[in-house]
Amino acid sequence: MQGFGIHASMWTMKWDRSGAERAIAGAVKYKMDFIEIPLVDAPSVDATHTRKLLEKHALRAACSLVLPQAAWASARPEAAIEHLKTAIEKAAAMGGEALTGVTYGGTNERTGSPPTKAEYDNVARALEAAAKHAERNGIQLGVEAVNRYENHLVNSAEQAVALVERIGMANVFVHLDTFHMNIEEKGAANGILSARNHLKYMHMSESDRGTPGYGNVPWDAIFACLAATGFKGGLTLESFVSMPSEMAGDISTWRPVARDADEVLDNGLSFLRSKAAQYGLY
Amino acid sequence: MQGFGIHASMWTMKWDRSGAERAIAGAVKYKMDFIEIPLVDAPSVDATHTRKLLEKHALRAACSLVLPQAAWASARPEAAIEHLKTAIEKAAAMGGEALTGVTYGGTNERTGSPPTKAEYDNVARALEAAAKHAERNGIQLGVEAVNRYENHLVNSAEQAVALVERIGMANVFVHLDTFHMNIEEKGAANGILSARNHLKYMHMSESDRGTPGYGNVPWDAIFACLAATGFKGGLTLESFVSMPSEMAGDISTWRPVARDADEVLDNGLSFLRSKAAQYGLY
Amino acid sequence: MQGFGIHASMWTMKWDRSGAERAIAGAVKYKMDFIEIPLVDAPSVDATHTRKLLEKHALRAACSLVLPQAAWASARPEAAIEHLKTAIEKAAAMGGEALTGVTYGGTNERTGSPPTKAEYDNVARALEAAAKHAERNGIQLGVEAVNRYENHLVNSAEQAVALVERIGMANVFVHLDTFHMNIEEKGAANGILSARNHLKYMHMSESDRGTPGYGNVPWDAIFACLAATGFKGGLTLESFVSMPSEMAGDISTWRPVARDADEVLDNGLSFLRSKAAQYGLY
Amino acid sequence: MQGFGIHASMWTMKWDRSGAERAIAGAVKYKMDFIEIPLVDAPSVDATHTRKLLEKHALRAACSLVLPQAAWASARPEAAIEHLKTAIEKAAAMGGEALTGVTYGGTNERTGSPPTKAEYDNVARALEAAAKHAERNGIQLGVEAVNRYENHLVNSAEQAVALVERIGMANVFVHLDTFHMNIEEKGAANGILSARNHLKYMHMSESDRGTPGYGNVPWDAIFACLAATGFKGGLTLESFVSMPSEMAGDISTWRPVARDADEVLDNGLSFLRSKAAQYGLY
Repeated sequence: MQGFGIHASMWTMKWDRSGAERAIAGAVKYKMDFIEIPLVDAPSVDATHTRKLLEKHALRAACSLVLPQAAWASARPEAAIEHLKTAIEKAAAMGGEALTGVTYGGTNERTGSPPTKAEYDNVARALEAAAKHAERNGIQLGVEAVNRYENHLVNSAEQAVALVERIGMANVFVHLDTFHMNIEEKGAANGILSARNHLKYMHMSESDRGTPGYGNVPWDAIFACLAATGFKGGLTLESFVSMPSEMAGDISTWRPVARDADEVLDNGLSFLRSKAAQYGLY
Repeated sequence: MQGFGIHASMWTMKWDRSGAERAIAGAVKYKMDFIEIPLVDAPSVDATHTRKLLEKHALRAACSLVLPQAAWASARPEAAIEHLKTAIEKAAAMGGEALTGVTYGGTNERTGSPPTKAEYDNVARALEAAAKHAERNGIQLGVEAVNRYENHLVNSAEQAVALVERIGMANVFVHLDTFHMNIEEKGAANGILSARNHLKYMHMSESDRGTPGYGNVPWDAIFACLAATGFKGGLTLESFVSMPSEMAGDISTWRPVARDADEVLDNGLSFLRSKAAQYGLY
Repeated sequence: MQGFGIHASMWTMKWDRSGAERAIAGAVKYKMDFIEIPLVDAPSVDATHTRKLLEKHALRAACSLVLPQAAWASARPEAAIEHLKTAIEKAAAMGGEALTGVTYGGTNERTGSPPTKAEYDNVARALEAAAKHAERNGIQLGVEAVNRYENHLVNSAEQAVALVERIGMANVFVHLDTFHMNIEEKGAANGILSARNHLKYMHMSESDRGTPGYGNVPWDAIFACLAATGFKGGLTLESFVSMPSEMAGDISTWRPVARDADEVLDNGLSFLRSKAAQYGLY
Repeated sequence: MQGFGIHASMWTMKWDRSGAERAIAGAVKYKMDFIEIPLVDAPSVDATHTRKLLEKHALRAACSLVLPQAAWASARPEAAIEHLKTAIEKAAAMGGEALTGVTYGGTNERTGSPPTKAEYDNVARALEAAAKHAERNGIQLGVEAVNRYENHLVNSAEQAVALVERIGMANVFVHLDTFHMNIEEKGAANGILSARNHLKYMHMSESDRGTPGYGNVPWDAIFACLAATGFKGGLTLESFVSMPSEMAGDISTWRPVARDADEVLDNGLSFLRSKAAQYGLY
C-alpha cells in the first residue's frame, strides 16, 4: 500500500453491498488513495461487487481482520490458517493488495500469563502458512502490534519484527498503530525505529481513538520519523467514532470518542494531511 | 495526602511483615513523604506492626485496592460495601490517611456494553456507604479513573467527578493516573482541568508503566496544570517494574517495563522531582 | 480584552484609511472578537474613521506599539511618556480598550549588558506616568515580555510581573507571547503560571512566527494552563507572514514564515480555535 | 567527530593554559568523548600545550568560532579567509578534528534586509577557500545555522545545506543546534530531515540555553530523528550557564539560564545521555 487511506469503519463495519457502496463513496469523497476493508465475515463478502466499485473509482484497498477466538493462532493454528486463507482469497478476489491487522489472534486475547514459546511457535506456523498462501494470491500479509490489553503476544514493534523476521518472507510486513504505540513504545516514534524497513502500514489513530490532533499522540515525532526512515507505505486514518454499539466489547470503547464522524473526517483528516506535508511525506 | 509518595509495589505486593519492612525501608531511603500500601488481602494485614513502622520513620500512608470480582460494586454493591469497610478499618488501624484506587470495581471488569444506569446506581450506593464508614474512621476515600480496557465504568476524569459529586461528601475525592489519562483524556492535562478541586491524588505513571521520563506522558503539561490548579494532594510514583509475575493478568503486563527497579527509582523518581520543582510544585 | 483577536499585520501595518478598511474587513470576515491595531505612527491615524468602522462592525480593538529608539524608556523616560500619552489618547479616541506591546522600549534594544537598576527605574517611571494617563482615558496598559534578542529588559513573565507589580495599578497588565515564551520560559507554560492573574493578553504566535500548529510551541500545555488559571483575556493570532519587507529589520525575519496569509488564516486560526475549544477556553 | 562532547564554555571561554587545563579536566571528569574548544583568539592559543593535554587524556577536540565583524564573510570575504585559515591551522596544530560554528559571520550580524546574492557569493567564496585550506590540514569545516536574530544569512538547515552543497567538498558539513532549530524549523526535527547526511555535528542546547530537559526543545523528536537518519556525528552539550558577563552582548543573555553549572552537568548531561540511549544512539 502507498499513500493515504481510511478505515471503512468511518461508514460501516458490515461489508455487504450497501456498506461497500457507502464506504467507497465516502473514501472517494475524501480523496483517499485507498480504503481499509474489515473482513469481519469474509465468506459473506461479494468480492466481484467490491472489485467493480473499486475499479470504477480507481480506489485501492487493503483488507484487515482480527481472528475470532475459535481461530486464535496461539492455540489453534490450523483454524487460524483456514480462516486466514479464506480471507486472503477474498482479499485477492476483490482486488485488495494486502491483508493485515491482528492476523495472529484476537483483541480480547489474554491468557493471564506472558506469551510462551509454544504460543509463538503456533503463531509463526500459522503466519508462515498464511504468508505462502498470500504469496500465491499476490497479497501482502501484515502483522499488527496491539497494546497489552488487547493481546498478550505482540505489543511492541520489536515483537512484531521478531515474528516477521522469523517467517522471513518478502510479502510479510509490520503494521503499527499510533494508538498502540502511544501505550507500548518508549517514545512512540521508537516503534518506527524498531520496525524500520519492515514497516509498510500505519494506523494513524489518536490516543483515545477519536479525532487525530485532539489527543496525546506525539504526531510531530511520528511524522518526522516516518519521513526520516523513508517510509513508503500506507497511512490509514482509524477512529472508533462510528463503531456500531454491538462491537463495543471488541474494541473496549464505552463512550463517544469524538463529537461525530464529520469532526474526524474534516478536522482529523486534514490534520494528518497537513502534518504529512509538513514533514515532506506524501 | 500531600507531597511525594511511592507505591509499595516497587518492593512488594504482599503486605506481610517482611514486605512492610522492606517497602517502608525503601520509601524512607528515597525520602518519600508517604507510601501507598496495596490492600490485596486486608484481613491478613498486621495493622499494629505497620503503624509502628510508619510512626518510627515518620512516614505517612495511603492504602489502595481493586475490588475482587465477587465484590464489584456495579453488580454486588453489598459485597463491595463489606469489602470496603474492612479495608477502611484496616487503613485506619495502620494510621493511613486515605483508601483509594478502583474502589468501585475491578481491572478486568468489562461487560461488553456501555455502563448502565443500574450499574452506576449500585456503584454510587456502595461508595456512599463506604464514604460514611470512612468518615467515621477519619479516612478519605478516592475514586480512580482507569482506562477503557480495565473497566467500563469510570474512564475519564469527568466520569470520576460525576460520581464524586453524586456522592457529595467532603471525604470523597478524585484520583487520576497519568498512564490512564494518556489514553482517555483529550489532551492528558484536560483530566486535571475536569477534576479541578476534586483532585487530591495522582498516580505519576509513565505511558508504558515503566520509568517516568522515558515514555509518552506529556509531563510538562501535566505538571504545569497541577501547579496552575493549585493542586495540593499526593503525587505517587507508580511503575509495574517489580510486579510479581502471578499478577501479570491483573495488570495486563507481559514483558519488563523498565530495565530494573533502580532505573525507576533513580532516574524516574528524580525526573518527577525535577519537573515538580520546575513548575513550583513541592 | 476578551475573546479571539487578530493582529492587523495580516492585512496591513499602515493604519491609514485604506489599511484600516482592509484589516477590519478581514477581521470581520474571520469572525474575530477584536483586532489589534499597530500604532506605528499614532499621530497620523484618523481615529474617527477607525472608530466608526469598528462600531459599524461591532468589532473591538486593542492598540499596540514598540517604542522608537528616541523614546526608549530605559534611557529617555520623558520621551517615552510623551510617546505613550499620544498613543493612549489615540487608542481612546478610536474606541480601543488597551494599549500594549513593548510599551517600555524597542525590539532592537540591547546595551550589551544586563539591565541596570537605573534602566528599570526609568522604565517604571515612564510606565507609571503612562498608566495614570491611560487610567484617565479608560485604557488598559500592557507590558509585553519579549525575547533576549529583542530587548534586554523584560524577557520572562516573571520580569514582566515584577514591573507590573512595581507600578501597582489596576489597569496595568502582563502581556505574553508564545513565540517569546518558547525561547525564554523553562517550560513555555511556566510563563502563564508566573503571570497568573496579571495575565490579560496573549499573542498566540508560532515558534517561527508562521502558521500556528506547524511549529514547536507546546500548544496543549499553553491552552491547558490558560484554562487552568482561569484566563479571561484576549487571545490574539500573530504571524509575520504578511509583514512588509521594509520592516524586516524590526522583526528580524528574512524569509517567508508561511506559505501565504491564507495558510495562517485558514489553518492557523482554525487550529487555535480548535485547541481553545478542546480545553474549554472560549 | 563522533560521540558525546561538551562545549568548553562550561569551564572557560578563555583558552589560555589554565583555561585549557580546567576545561579538559572537566570534560574528562564527565567522561566526554570530545571537547569543543572556542577559538575566540586563535593566535594566542598554545597549541602544543593543548595537544599534549588532549593526548594525555585521550580526549578528542573540535574547535569553533564566530567571525568578528571585521571578518564577516558576507562583506569581507578576504578577511574571513585569513581569519579562518589561522583558526584552521591552530585547530590542526592542537590535534582537533573540525572547525565549526558561525564560520561565515557573526552572532550580531543583521543588515536589516534579507540576504542578497552578493552576500551569499562572498560567503561561498570564503568558505570554499577555507574548506580547501582545511582539507590540506586534515580538518573538517562546519557551517552552523543560527537563528534570525543572530544572523540574517543562514537560519534554517535548508539554507545551511544549500551553502554546503554549493561548496561541494567532502570535508564541509552542516552543524545544527537545537536552540536555533526550536526557533527556525517547522517542527524542530525537520532540520535533521533537511540536513540528512550533511549533518555531522549537533549542539544539544535547551530552548533557553539552560539545562537540557528543563525547557521546550522537543527532545524525543530530535533524538528519534537523529537515530532514524543514522546520525553518526558529534553531540555536544552547550549551555550558557557559565558564560563570562563581558560576553553577554555576544550571546544576548542577560540573566542566569540555569541554577548553576552543576545543574547543567549533572542533570542536563545525564538527561541527554539517557535520551540518546533510549533511542539507540550511542
